[in-house]
Amino acid sequence: MYRTTHWLAVVAPVLLVAGTVGVATRAVAAADDLQSRAQTAFKPLERPAPMAAVRVDLGRQLYHDPRLSKSGAISCASCHNLASGGVDNRETSLGHKAQVGGRNAPTTLNASVHLAQFWDGRAKDLTEQAKGPILNPGEMALPSEAEAVKVVRSVPGYQKAFKAAFPGSGVTYQNIAVAIADFEKTLVTPSRFDDYLRGRKDALSATEKKGLKTFMDKGCVTCHGGVGVGGSMYMKFGVVAPYKHQADEGRFAITKDPADKYVFKVPSLRNIQKTYPYFHDGKVWSLDEAVGIMGKTQLGLDLAADERAAIVAFLKSLDGELPVQALRLPELPVSGPDTPRPSL
Amino acid sequence: MYRTTHWLAVVAPVLLVAGTVGVATRAVAAADDLQSRAQTAFKPLERPAPMAAVRVDLGRQLYHDPRLSKSGAISCASCHNLASGGVDNRETSLGHKAQVGGRNAPTTLNASVHLAQFWDGRAKDLTEQAKGPILNPGEMALPSEAEAVKVVRSVPGYQKAFKAAFPGSGVTYQNIAVAIADFEKTLVTPSRFDDYLRGRKDALSATEKKGLKTFMDKGCVTCHGGVGVGGSMYMKFGVVAPYKHQADEGRFAITKDPADKYVFKVPSLRNIQKTYPYFHDGKVWSLDEAVGIMGKTQLGLDLAADERAAIVAFLKSLDGELPVQALRLPELPVSGPDTPRPSL
Repeated sequence: MYRTTHWLAVVAPVLLVAGTVGVATRAVAAADDLQSRAQTAFKPLERPAPMAAVRVDLGRQLYHDPRLSKSGAISCASCHNLASGGVDNRETSLGHKAQVGGRNAPTTLNASVHLAQFWDGRAKDLTEQAKGPILNPGEMALPSEAEAVKVVRSVPGYQKAFKAAFPGSGVTYQNIAVAIADFEKTLVTPSRFDDYLRGRKDALSATEKKGLKTFMDKGCVTCHGGVGVGGSMYMKFGVVAPYKHQADEGRFAITKDPADKYVFKVPSLRNIQKTYPYFHDGKVWSLDEAVGIMGKTQLGLDLAADERAAIVAFLKSLDGELPVQALRLPELPVSGPDTPRPSL
Repeated sequence: MYRTTHWLAVVAPVLLVAGTVGVATRAVAAADDLQSRAQTAFKPLERPAPMAAVRVDLGRQLYHDPRLSKSGAISCASCHNLASGGVDNRETSLGHKAQVGGRNAPTTLNASVHLAQFWDGRAKDLTEQAKGPILNPGEMALPSEAEAVKVVRSVPGYQKAFKAAFPGSGVTYQNIAVAIADFEKTLVTPSRFDDYLRGRKDALSATEKKGLKTFMDKGCVTCHGGVGVGGSMYMKFGVVAPYKHQADEGRFAITKDPADKYVFKVPSLRNIQKTYPYFHDGKVWSLDEAVGIMGKTQLGLDLAADERAAIVAFLKSLDGELPVQALRLPELPVSGPDTPRPSL
């Protein structure tokens, strides 16, 4: 069902690396050529091919539209705020009637490159993901797909926009999610690191390069590689040593496979400086501390302060820029006479 | 303390007009020249003179920054959403821990032209207004000015921006409010009606002109005139007949003057199509119904369906456009190690 690499298949080499501090990784790279090693381990992030503007613009409206919540006060953007890295910088989000969420809101930035959506990968893509929070009683709390469709259909401007964006089918719950997903696919943030991967040696500073080298030498790259610098596999949180706040059983709740206990999707590290607090539970606010915890729990390493600092410097080079269009607030079409009113 | 026209000074002529259906208004205008009558009663809305970008940009960030709330989830933009006419389209807003507010959130669009701020005018200008909700325990709920300053000072990017915007004083509660107010002063939305006032006779349709004429003939313009089409005086809600939901005593709570019972600031009607639901209590969702209520309570008139429809058509011509810059989401500067964390 999911494009999944089982974490055990990855852990074996990680443990080897952990024991030998990166010798295995170093061996496969051309001697001392940091850039070519990086080019093997990562892929530059590309802006998406242009999509139908009529869907992206509609998706931008829906993403920012609080009418998709029962209270009329919560939109996708409430927890995935594009002004702050696509997250809300809270431990966990506040949903309907200020209910406290169960997991930290992951960023929507670059989410399209992930192998699946949500921390536990329970949605296969952005379209499936978008359908979740709208109906979650603790989040946006609309009672049903039919109610969401009723809300959107009741807005004359949306009627028209859906006719243009989805000529055959108009307003359906599926199309609401598709439009939101199409907008989210534009939330792609290339960074200086991508310039580096494309060959610009001076795109990273000496400290950032030192951090990149440490990141690869220590084995972080084993999970946090590829185009997303993560987001491409599942992994147990606590491979070598348990996470100090261990509680959430992760994918186990979905698969019921004991091997999936404490297994989560490996998050992308792009824009990680902006997407604090960290981990599925949002319990760690400092990036330095988060790097230290990863070293211990995943690699069995006590990273030294200067190693953590170098890695953090590298991670900050993953801060990207949203396209101008993505930061443009939409003008929402006005409600019609039959638009359901907000309630608690 | 306030630049106030006492409502009794305005009511006397209104009552006269109400009795004679606009004859008084017509008498002072050049025979049948709708445009010149309108030019006397209203003033075109002008874009503000360019302000220091460093303050406006800082204000845009603060306006969108949920760190100015205790929960870290509520910003000025939560209730004054620029994607939806500067309001949240709720009866009253949801504040800290989903507490329900006491009055309908007025729009920030064109608020700079009002004689004072809040429904009861208790803040003399936008700067004074901006200081209120941040500390209101039912709204953004920061415990003190000092805490707001602490939050903002703890963000390195703000430290720098305040130094540039307020070289002498840096981060102070006053300067936080000044920056927000400066941003809000850019939220000015000229419309087709302003083109009409400037001489373009074809800027309004025949129906809209009919509505404008009705609006002036019936006496609506007595209160809803000037550059804001309202926003320039206080008035009792229920001059001729009480408002059906009469409960809130308005300015009386501030002044303790019995003459101020049920007296509110006359709202601007610019963008009124977008700023539903209507009145200080947000209890009326239909613009047609709101116009009918105003006729009854303020003018003692039973406006006919076609009169209300014409007035509504005119009011829709007051929908304006925000400048592109105002619809640009800021990128918020990241928190520092000492930034207070969200709490409930």
